[in-house]
Amino acid sequence: MTKLGYTARHAESVKRVKLPQIEGFPNQYKRDYTVKIIHPEFTSVCPKTGLPDFGIITIEYVPDKFCLELKSLKYYFLKYRNLGVFMENTVNKILDDVVASIKPKRCVVTGEFTPRGGIKSIITAEHRKKK
Amino acid sequence: MTKLGYTARHAESVKRVKLPQIEGFPNQYKRDYTVKIIHPEFTSVCPKTGLPDFGIITIEYVPDKFCLELKSLKYYFLKYRNLGVFMENTVNKILDDVVASIKPKRCVVTGEFTPRGGIKSIITAEHRKKK
Amino acid sequence: MTKLGYTARHAESVKRVKLPQIEGFPNQYKRDYTVKIIHPEFTSVCPKTGLPDFGIITIEYVPDKFCLELKSLKYYFLKYRNLGVFMENTVNKILDDVVASIKPKRCVVTGEFTPRGGIKSIITAEHRKKK
Amino acid sequence: MTKLGYTARHAESVKRVKLPQIEGFPNQYKRDYTVKIIHPEFTSVCPKTGLPDFGIITIEYVPDKFCLELKSLKYYFLKYRNLGVFMENTVNKILDDVVASIKPKRCVVTGEFTPRGGIKSIITAEHRKKK
Amino acid sequence: MTKLGYTARHAESVKRVKLPQIEGFPNQYKRDYTVKIIHPEFTSVCPKTGLPDFGIITIEYVPDKFCLELKSLKYYFLKYRNLGVFMENTVNKILDDVVASIKPKRCVVTGEFTPRGGIKSIITAEHRKKK
Amino acid sequence: MTKLGYTARHAESVKRVKLPQIEGFPNQYKRDYTVKIIHPEFTSVCPKTGLPDFGIITIEYVPDKFCLELKSLKYYFLKYRNLGVFMENTVNKILDDVVASIKPKRCVVTGEFTPRGGIKSIITAEHRKKK
Amino acid sequence: MTKLGYTARHAESVKRVKLPQIEGFPNQYKRDYTVKIIHPEFTSVCPKTGLPDFGIITIEYVPDKFCLELKSLKYYFLKYRNLGVFMENTVNKILDDVVASIKPKRCVVTGEFTPRGGIKSIITAEHRKKK
Amino acid sequence: MTKLGYTARHAESVKRVKLPQIEGFPNQYKRDYTVKIIHPEFTSVCPKTGLPDFGIITIEYVPDKFCLELKSLKYYFLKYRNLGVFMENTVNKILDDVVASIKPKRCVVTGEFTPRGGIKSIITAEHRKKK
Amino acid sequence: MTKLGYTARHAESVKRVKLPQIEGFPNQYKRDYTVKIIHPEFTSVCPKTGLPDFGIITIEYVPDKFCLELKSLKYYFLKYRNLGVFMENTVNKILDDVVASIKPKRCVVTGEFTPRGGIKSIITAEHRKKK
Amino acid sequence: MTKLGYTARHAESVKRVKLPQIEGFPNQYKRDYTVKIIHPEFTSVCPKTGLPDFGIITIEYVPDKFCLELKSLKYYFLKYRNLGVFMENTVNKILDDVVASIKPKRCVVTGEFTPRGGIKSIITAEHRKKK
Repeated sequence: MTKLGYTARHAESVKRVKLPQIEGFPNQYKRDYTVKIIHPEFTSVCPKTGLPDFGIITIEYVPDKFCLELKSLKYYFLKYRNLGVFMENTVNKILDDVVASIKPKRCVVTGEFTPRGGIKSIITAEHRKKK
Repeated sequence: MTKLGYTARHAESVKRVKLPQIEGFPNQYKRDYTVKIIHPEFTSVCPKTGLPDFGIITIEYVPDKFCLELKSLKYYFLKYRNLGVFMENTVNKILDDVVASIKPKRCVVTGEFTPRGGIKSIITAEHRKKK
Repeated sequence: MTKLGYTARHAESVKRVKLPQIEGFPNQYKRDYTVKIIHPEFTSVCPKTGLPDFGIITIEYVPDKFCLELKSLKYYFLKYRNLGVFMENTVNKILDDVVASIKPKRCVVTGEFTPRGGIKSIITAEHRKKK
Repeated sequence: MTKLGYTARHAESVKRVKLPQIEGFPNQYKRDYTVKIIHPEFTSVCPKTGLPDFGIITIEYVPDKFCLELKSLKYYFLKYRNLGVFMENTVNKILDDVVASIKPKRCVVTGEFTPRGGIKSIITAEHRKKK
Repeated sequence: MTKLGYTARHAESVKRVKLPQIEGFPNQYKRDYTVKIIHPEFTSVCPKTGLPDFGIITIEYVPDKFCLELKSLKYYFLKYRNLGVFMENTVNKILDDVVASIKPKRCVVTGEFTPRGGIKSIITAEHRKKK
Repeated sequence: MTKLGYTARHAESVKRVKLPQIEGFPNQYKRDYTVKIIHPEFTSVCPKTGLPDFGIITIEYVPDKFCLELKSLKYYFLKYRNLGVFMENTVNKILDDVVASIKPKRCVVTGEFTPRGGIKSIITAEHRKKK
Repeated sequence: MTKLGYTARHAESVKRVKLPQIEGFPNQYKRDYTVKIIHPEFTSVCPKTGLPDFGIITIEYVPDKFCLELKSLKYYFLKYRNLGVFMENTVNKILDDVVASIKPKRCVVTGEFTPRGGIKSIITAEHRKKK
Repeated sequence: MTKLGYTARHAESVKRVKLPQIEGFPNQYKRDYTVKIIHPEFTSVCPKTGLPDFGIITIEYVPDKFCLELKSLKYYFLKYRNLGVFMENTVNKILDDVVASIKPKRCVVTGEFTPRGGIKSIITAEHRKKK
Repeated sequence: MTKLGYTARHAESVKRVKLPQIEGFPNQYKRDYTVKIIHPEFTSVCPKTGLPDFGIITIEYVPDKFCLELKSLKYYFLKYRNLGVFMENTVNKILDDVVASIKPKRCVVTGEFTPRGGIKSIITAEHRKKK
Repeated sequence: MTKLGYTARHAESVKRVKLPQIEGFPNQYKRDYTVKIIHPEFTSVCPKTGLPDFGIITIEYVPDKFCLELKSLKYYFLKYRNLGVFMENTVNKILDDVVASIKPKRCVVTGEFTPRGGIKSIITAEHRKKK
């Protein structure tokens, strides 16, 4: 059904790329509450064309023991600037990396990207901690 | 109740029109996540008046084994440019063609068309994979 | 509690006014899907003051065997231009007439009217087919 | 916990202020439907400062035997123009008076007031008829 | 996993800072209703950089025996102007202080802060009275 | 160059249609000042199709001895509701009638009409009193 | 040309109504600069219908020796709340009163009023100091 | 300085393409006035990529003896749907064709096109009749 | 005409308050060009009430030998956070301090402040270098 | 007056950086007309912090013998992605490079950059051909 074998191999390798650690700081409150972080200046590179992609990344999570430390998150996002990665994989990889770092009770990552060829993409992925 | 037999025959034939294959590429992630694709530059031809229709097509889906490849989707949309088709059928046909191509777990297609004769139409159709 | 007997008699007679038939055309698809029609140029006459009312009429329905034919709908709306009718009755009457014509599985009609005397009205009525 | 005894006494007396009757007219339709009325020109007086308050009052109701007659409602609202009343009580009193007049199946009143001292208030109260 | 021990100690001490009492006034109505208070002029100081943070604080509550008195709330907010406090803790602390003052049936506090380093934060915490 | 003789004859006759007098009231102030009147609920009939046109009419004038009386203006506009008239002529005729009535020092009339066939028109005409 | 003699006499008397003094405070700077003051909560009474008018009043001036003191201006505006006055005269009277109080080098007053009978008015008057 | 010889030759030939005549109808008024026509549904084809371009075309003119007849203009625009033409030339050619048809006293044509490759273009050309 | 002597003395003293130096960096280009700087997070204290004021400060200038260095400007603005100063004087003082620092060919400073007592102020002052 | 010698030396060297040639294509029309190009996806690097800047670049020009070729312009903008350059110099350098390439009759370049440290910058530079 598809001849895009290249795409699959590339995407697989991106999953294994090591990016800088996203740090957390201890959550002071025991109640469940929600933190929503919006980064409207995300940019990466399209692996097929080599041209830049731009987007708004949103991370919404319920902290458990740790909250996201914003400065380390800023430097984490910066590593995508010259990285070739598909938009679907960007969103899933950010979700994996946030979950690995601060183990939130729940986390939703959304990427809303600027149009390419007259077509705009919005991708959303969610993780829930097993009880 | 209706004398629009012409309309019915025309619509029937549109269902059988062959458009270019929408391609997919392998989905790298196992979790359920959502991809929303927005194409604000859709245009087709009204089969009754021969005049152009314009609209915004949105495809929202949960991928199973494949994701929509955007370049093939762009060329698929292009084939409607000189095709006579009613707005209700456009939305249902796009849904059929996306489902046939990438067999998503769930897919919703929406068409929001510019007003004609002071009347604007928004059509929404949904498909869910049988379990 | 009210001395507005005039209003009641008038409204009753409007329910029996015959307007042009809204036509349908055969629905080509078996799945449940939604059609939303927006008419921002609705105008009628206030039966108490004789002054014009303006509004946006929205019809959202799930077609069964027929879809609404838009040209006949346009001429149907046109008949309200010089008709004296209260806003509450306008919305209920349009719902009755659409249901009588195309027998949809579900239908919601909304009228959002421009302010009169500094007061704006939005009226919504719904019909569901009995199973 | 509070020294605002003055406030309590004042609010209590407002509950007993007699305002002009809100009239209804007979509802012509048996189905449940919703009427939403928006009055963006509401003004009253703050009982503590004597300065005017401004707000948008919204009444959303499902009529039973009667609908709200808008002209009488306009004159009802006018009586607040020089009345000292707290915003929380305004919304509850309008709800009480609408319910007493037309006995709707359900009614929600919302008051969205302009900021005072950099703080804006939105108050919402709901009534449901007992079955 | 984190080296931000400083952050944790600081946040802990903020939880114990005494701010001026938020006062209430007696609620005149027995029904459950909602009061939403929006303060778009909130400002505090970032404890790491010493630079100001700005935000919109929203408090939405269902009053039990008392309503929030707005003037005392304004002076309560003013105390944050030169206080070093993290955004996550601001929202939780305001919730704690409102709950301690007027013991509402339900209360949600939201803080929507202006971007820092291209990253914007929105934090939401909720309290429900035990029955 | 054009075969639209019909159009010309029709337009000519509209210039001679007698509409109700627009009244004025005495201007109390000697300084030059500007009054801008906006009527967003204008509607007339297209003489070619018989279908309604909708538009926003704006009258901006510097009064001399008289100001426009708004109630008579409302009834003047109402006469266009069932009048067949081209948009270009509507704007010029309103300007002629305002100038004849209150003889302003300067007057600009603009008509901004809703799209027909995907084409929207805005027409502006100006009169200045000879000195 | 007009039978609205009542209107003229009423307007004449409004010109002589004494309102509270608008105060000024000494201007500290010698350069020409502009102060624009916007009051979106203006309300008065229509002398013909007795119903309230609402509007946004804007005063833009170049101070000479004095600037407008805002608290006295607030109490000045408050006096219009129960005063019957036409919109054209409101704007001209505010201009007269500001000029009499602080003798600015230049002053423009604008009133933008909410629609009545579907017609909205914006009135603008200007004063320049003679050299 | 450029190797785009192809572009030049193509553009030259577009200048000579014959499109359907834009018709006029006789102007009924002698005063100078302005007509602004907005067509938000313009589409043509990029001669280099074969992909569609979309744009909003605005024609603003002061009529002399004739006004633009909108129906013929609609069919004139339709001819661009499958025509390969650069955006700069589209705007200049429309201006040439309008001027040839109705010989206006003044005419400005603007084309505002949707982005391609992240770059949006707006082109404006003006003609004034020689006196 | 005014009894606000206190105000005058206070304002006079503010003119002499020493704030941190705004630094410049050498302008690399000889042509006249414009730099517009917008700071939406300005806050100071009202000298009469002791309550905070908030505003958007805009500085637009044509550089001569130096451009404004933004980091020093940020720390300059920070000094107003706990300074009692009237809005008219804020704008004039910022203009004085920018002119003293980088001696621009032209400079305009605007302050747009949030409403107090339902009244919003916008102040604009301009400096031009003498030739 | 400034100690930012580093800044000056850096900026000087940026003026001499060689970027890819912006190409032109022959202008087909002799009349003066305007082309406005908007690039909302501009990004460069701040030379002081190493962090990315984002902005919207607008180029408005009157072509003489050549028009800007958009594909070469896209690749020209791309070279700024990893270039350290101050915002003031970005705008002036783009203007220099456009003027050197297509020698327009007039050209204005504007850069509107996203806020840094709560401060937003908009820079505008203009070139006119000598006659």
